[in-house]
Parts: sequence; structure tokens; C-alpha cells
Amino acid sequence: MRYVLLVQYDGTCFSGFQKQKSARTVQGTLEEAASGLGACRVCGSGRTDAGVHALGQVCHFDADPAVPPEHIRDYLNAKLPPDVRVLKSAAAPDGFDCTRGARKKTYLYRFYHAETPLPLLARYAVRVQVKPDVARMRAAAELLLGEHDFAAFRASGSSAKTTVRTIYAIGIEERERRGYTEYELRITGNGFLYNMVRILAGELIAIGGGRTEARLAEALRTGKRELLSKTMPANGLVLLEVDYGIPLFAAE
Amino acid sequence: MRYVLLVQYDGTCFSGFQKQKSARTVQGTLEEAASGLGACRVCGSGRTDAGVHALGQVCHFDADPAVPPEHIRDYLNAKLPPDVRVLKSAAAPDGFDCTRGARKKTYLYRFYHAETPLPLLARYAVRVQVKPDVARMRAAAELLLGEHDFAAFRASGSSAKTTVRTIYAIGIEERERRGYTEYELRITGNGFLYNMVRILAGELIAIGGGRTEARLAEALRTGKRELLSKTMPANGLVLLEVDYGIPLFAAE
Repeated sequence: MRYVLLVQYDGTCFSGFQKQKSARTVQGTLEEAASGLGACRVCGSGRTDAGVHALGQVCHFDADPAVPPEHIRDYLNAKLPPDVRVLKSAAAPDGFDCTRGARKKTYLYRFYHAETPLPLLARYAVRVQVKPDVARMRAAAELLLGEHDFAAFRASGSSAKTTVRTIYAIGIEERERRGYTEYELRITGNGFLYNMVRILAGELIAIGGGRTEARLAEALRTGKRELLSKTMPANGLVLLEVDYGIPLFAAE
Repeated sequence: MRYVLLVQYDGTCFSGFQKQKSARTVQGTLEEAASGLGACRVCGSGRTDAGVHALGQVCHFDADPAVPPEHIRDYLNAKLPPDVRVLKSAAAPDGFDCTRGARKKTYLYRFYHAETPLPLLARYAVRVQVKPDVARMRAAAELLLGEHDFAAFRASGSSAKTTVRTIYAIGIEERERRGYTEYELRITGNGFLYNMVRILAGELIAIGGGRTEARLAEALRTGKRELLSKTMPANGLVLLEVDYGIPLFAAE
């Protein structure tokens, strides 16, 4: 029997989602918790890198139907450490595969501008030294919408078969707070290459700081990574939601 | 020469503000950073307990005027660890004392209601199992406004000379989020006893969950701690602001 899980984690103390022999990972931690159910492998909708958080990662695993699907959540949470929690559990729909079935993913990149680093923001947001012009960022984001070859937006070591992806939406919000300005970059696409959101966030922030859009346009055309800014740090990134085109959990 | 600092810290990895011989504290950390300036002691507007955060703690210290007051911030930040930062520095006004001069303090207590603990909220907010009725909490908060003897709202071990304090304002905000409800309890007073905000938050949350107001009224009348609910955990508490009746920093 296949079970589906909605999982939240604080990525700070994990070496990413994907299981590794001698590092603490989200997948390894979930598999350990699920081992008592006869599960050998817990799959995720995709890997998240070391330090990346997830508000709504989707996972599945196969196990004996000893525990009712709606009780799986509490069973696993009783075994999991505080930085990872199952928010919902259910019996998976027929033929469901959390990796192959994902139609859209939404990521959030959080950053802030302030005169000094702010300890109460540092865990989940990245400080930028130059205050970005959000109108410039939004204009540049338009170039990314739709289907493109995102070969330039990929860290080396990526093994994806194709680098063509579709971006459905990019939104950038700016909020003035007391003593700092907070930014949220939200992006929805049919999938993302390795480090793609963090490279894209870095380039949009650089453009917001005054860099020309021309290099972004050229990178889309030529696939050359070196035209773009540096990859932003992992801790600003959160996997918000994975969409399968069908409701997976009762309360949705 | 006396310098005044606006300080932010994430209290998670500190054993409170007050210096201790063999524990990592905010005061000890600030004094170590300031030691190169000839300062022996850094005072705070008040102690915060182990695990309590501060968005705007105010500190002062005396030192040789070798570094211009507005450069003190960067000097200290270069020496401080990432979980504590000086946001502003200035020359203190004549006769300024950050402890005795504090007129009002504002604290925030953050909590949430969700079916499971949420890893991405856990560092700065506390989960409550029963969804509180905010209208009941607000009505009970009215009883606390003004000058009262808050002897019942004090942890044992407190050495305050008087237990009379004035509460100027209490506000409770509720926001429905996807999958959880978030609450912020904000309270301003002329001073707070040891654990007072955490005891008061616990009692208001209990009243929001259905407990009668009568015990709160009786506790105010009799000073009996045992009439009230348990002290809430430290990690939901943030010292937001200390008011001295005068602007301390240029940009304010």
C-alpha cells in the first residue's frame, strides 16, 4: 500500500533531502521513522539542497497497511526530531508517484536589506547590502516567464536530461519594516534545475541593484552560466508547495 | 564617556542576558566584544531569561572615547557572533542609565495553533493545543490594564522591591494562515517582574481556551501565584522596544 505525506522541515541542520551514508538528511530521517512500518524507501517530490527549508514537501512510501493512513502522521511524528514533521498523511491515489506526478512547484526566496545583519531574520532570510529596485526586478522577471532553456541557471553537477523548463509566475513583494526592508520572491514552475531558484534570485537581486538586464537575456539565449551572478545562500529558500493537479489530503 | 547601543539577539543559544561564570550569555558576549575599548561592564535595560529573544534591547557602557560613537556599532559587530548584533550606537545623553532610565518596555509573545508542531515556526513561537477564543483573551486583558500589584505574576526567586507595575496596553492579533492560526500578544508596561509576561500570556491563553476569568481577578487581588496557569516557554518571547522618553539614536 502506498502512503502520501505532506512534510515540513527546517533545513538548517540537514545536509539536504537526499539520503547520504554519513550525513543527517531529511530522507534518511524519514526512512528511519518509517522503518517500523515495513517501509524501506521514502521518496520526495524532489531533492532540496543542504540548508533549504520546506513548508510543504510531498513524499510517498510503500508499506504494509497495518496502520490506517490518517494515523501514519502521528505515528511518524512520535518518532521524528523537532525539525521535521508530517503535517498530513493519506492513502495515495492509484498510480501516484510523488516525483514523476509533480506538475508545479512553488518556491519562496526571502531576503532583506538593513544596515547590519539582523539575528532574528538570519535563519530564514539573506541580507543584501544594496537596496534593490523592485520595479527593475519585476521587469526582468518577465523575461523568465514561459518556456525557456534554463541551461545557464544550473549548477555544475546537475544531471537533468533536459534543461527546458516553464515558469508560470514570479512575484516579488517588498515590505518596509522598522529598521529594515523585507523581500519575498515567489516562483512557480513545472520544475527547477539544480540551484536554479538560487541563481535566478541572485541575478534578479543584482538587476534590482543596477546591473543591466542584457546579460540575463543573453544567458537565456546562450546557456552560459558565467553571464549570471552568484548563487544565493540556501537558507533563504523554502519549498512552499507541490501541485499534482488533484487533491491529495482530505482537508484540502 | 558613555555609549548607548540598540542590540538585537536570537536568545536560543544564550543562557539569558545576565552574565554568568560558566555559561554563554548576551552580557558576557557584549563585554568580551567591548573589552578592546576599555569597557569593563555592559549594562542592559533589564535581564532577559534563557531563550528569550530581543529585537530592540538597549545597553550602555563606559569607555575611553577612542572610537567615534557612530563607529562603535561596526567595531562591535566585527567581533560579535551572528546571533547578537548592534543595530545602532551613539553617545549617551547626559546622566543616561539604560536600566534606571527605562520608562516603558514592550514585549511580544508569539504562539500558534496547528494540528501538529510546525518546524518552521518552532524557534520563535509556541504551539497551543486548544484554539483560543481571542475575544475572551481581550476581555480578560482589560483586567490587567492600569496599575496593579502583580505579585501573583512573578516567578519565585524574584528580588524586586515592589511588585506594583502599570500596564499601558495589551493587544492580541490573530491571523489565519494556511494550515495554522498565528497569534501575537503585545504588551507595554512601565516594567515587568521576573517571568511576568510568560505567566500572563499563559493565563490569557488558558482563558482563551475556556478557563474562567475569576481566578485572574482573584490573583490580582490576593497575589497568589498558584491561582494562575503555568509559565509559557521562553522561545515565544521577544523584547521589542524600550522607551526612555527621549530619542537615543540619530535616525529615530
